[in-house]
Amino acid sequence: MKIHNFSAGPCILPQEVFTKTAEAVLNFNNSGLSILEISHRSKDFVAVMEEARDLALELLNLKGKGYQALFLQGGASMEFLRIPYNFLKQNGKAAYLDTGTWANNAIKEAKAFGETLVIASSKEANYSFIPKDYSIPTDVDYFHCTSNNTIYGTQIKEFKSSSVPLICDMSSDIFSRTLDFSKFDVIYAGAQKNMGPAGVTLVVIKEELLGKTNRAIPNILNYQVHIAKESMYNTPAVSAIYTSLLTLQWLKKLGGVQAIESKNQAKADLLYQEIDRNPLFKGTAAVEDRSNMNATFLLQNDAAHKEQFDALWKAAGISGINGHRSVGGYRASMYNALPIESVQVLVDVMKELEKKLK
Amino acid sequence: MKIHNFSAGPCILPQEVFTKTAEAVLNFNNSGLSILEISHRSKDFVAVMEEARDLALELLNLKGKGYQALFLQGGASMEFLRIPYNFLKQNGKAAYLDTGTWANNAIKEAKAFGETLVIASSKEANYSFIPKDYSIPTDVDYFHCTSNNTIYGTQIKEFKSSSVPLICDMSSDIFSRTLDFSKFDVIYAGAQKNMGPAGVTLVVIKEELLGKTNRAIPNILNYQVHIAKESMYNTPAVSAIYTSLLTLQWLKKLGGVQAIESKNQAKADLLYQEIDRNPLFKGTAAVEDRSNMNATFLLQNDAAHKEQFDALWKAAGISGINGHRSVGGYRASMYNALPIESVQVLVDVMKELEKKLK
Repeated sequence: MKIHNFSAGPCILPQEVFTKTAEAVLNFNNSGLSILEISHRSKDFVAVMEEARDLALELLNLKGKGYQALFLQGGASMEFLRIPYNFLKQNGKAAYLDTGTWANNAIKEAKAFGETLVIASSKEANYSFIPKDYSIPTDVDYFHCTSNNTIYGTQIKEFKSSSVPLICDMSSDIFSRTLDFSKFDVIYAGAQKNMGPAGVTLVVIKEELLGKTNRAIPNILNYQVHIAKESMYNTPAVSAIYTSLLTLQWLKKLGGVQAIESKNQAKADLLYQEIDRNPLFKGTAAVEDRSNMNATFLLQNDAAHKEQFDALWKAAGISGINGHRSVGGYRASMYNALPIESVQVLVDVMKELEKKLK
Repeated sequence: MKIHNFSAGPCILPQEVFTKTAEAVLNFNNSGLSILEISHRSKDFVAVMEEARDLALELLNLKGKGYQALFLQGGASMEFLRIPYNFLKQNGKAAYLDTGTWANNAIKEAKAFGETLVIASSKEANYSFIPKDYSIPTDVDYFHCTSNNTIYGTQIKEFKSSSVPLICDMSSDIFSRTLDFSKFDVIYAGAQKNMGPAGVTLVVIKEELLGKTNRAIPNILNYQVHIAKESMYNTPAVSAIYTSLLTLQWLKKLGGVQAIESKNQAKADLLYQEIDRNPLFKGTAAVEDRSNMNATFLLQNDAAHKEQFDALWKAAGISGINGHRSVGGYRASMYNALPIESVQVLVDVMKELEKKLK
């Protein structure tokens, strides 16, 4: 049976990426060696790393604009720490927008490094909306936000302009929509949503902002060290980077971020229309902040219908739509590689439940 | 043509590990999903993580002895930082043995955290031997050493006992030989030699030693956080951990560390005997400190014979034996998965060169 993978991350990647990765695990670039055993210093892998860094910038329309792309390890959670180490000055302060669990984790790591202002938060409302009524202080070293909140199904639609560096965790919606990415000074993203498998993180940095904190930065956390070593300060996650490159190549072939954006919009429209139409369901996020990546919704009457609904979607081959424990209900993640046909299957199941209960 | 992969890391893994990984990239555990797209919270992957942590302890004979095994990201270089954060007390000091580039990198990261004593170093001799004439101070928070020095082809054969915690970077020889691992308080290793692909790090910790520094430790660097979250504080490197589990299972099936140790000894004996016998070659490391993992050697007359020797080994399908730039010459890495047949091919090529020049 075909599985419709709505998992929140790690998540579905393009089928051709799986096929090509499997081939490379057996024989990479016709070298007779596996991608799992080749040296990261081999000519073939150095070419992979260079193309991946270059293509990431190209897809974000940031080539030739003073940005560097890095492929590091540790997930976005490691960048929660690298950010203050590299950008929060001694005795400086930083501003954070608190829009969910991961935004909060970023705030926690920064606190040890200096004054960390939470300038707005929707925590009291269980992060069901994106705060908009705030202004970014002009005396902070940077402003940090989280573009998409996987757990709560919210997404920042408009990014405020300001005079301070703008740093954004785009783990769960990078490469999914067009933005003026040059508004951002640092963009980082764990690969395991729209870019590749778990185990590698993309960090895109406006290079001129580095080296200004007067802080002793450990080598492994120092962006300047990683830039100087072209993401090979230590052994990179070879295979995860290769799979990420395959995914970026797939996206480029498809027409890039602009092309995927309309596909993502169509998928989100299809599902949210059904959530709003079908009297058995309701969405959990504020309508204007709804994420195009993760749709969170509840049964209006969980006790009465959960068992039946769960049986229906399981029978349809749907996987990974149980909601996060902090929201409950359901979460359908519709990342780049998820075909609209899978969303249609879910919508059909929702309609089927309605029909059965009539 | 069959490739004989002597690469220093990433390096050869067992062929059955490649085959099984490629299968899982297409269809993991018959789930219909790729190992690259499954949730790290899925039952099937949680079982992988648990078995990998358990098997790592079992193979080191550390089960039930108060140790925890973690699978983290960032390579050994990230542990260079986690070690002082977790074990170097405020106003404390640590002792380090300087046996090579990576040992030195560990020392550099520790220096920002407290007094870092380099109690012995072979740097002046280009790290061609393991210093033995030192004693470990009793007033330090820990003693740190590097069991095997990939670049220089040296390996610590005897670990000194002391009253302070013993912390060892075993990246390049873990699971290759029997040791009394319970002498060590922390063992860590980047996976990409004897355990798996690049992108995951094994850390084995005597748990009772944690939580004693009075230092504010960032969450992502805090071993106690990772232990409490069973290596899932953030999304782990799913696929790299799965491949590591396959390699550990292969090792167990083979008879464990004791069984592989004699195979490794036979391979090392075969190659070093030829290096010592063949008048065209010489080893670079002190004989008593020679690594069973990485044999470093030079042509006695590089200018005269390099071209011919290089052509010979390339024609024989040998890959990855160019020496590191800081030593020059050749380095044959003979990790667990390298068959003795590959070493025999190299030895035959060395003999062939001798014959041709007669």
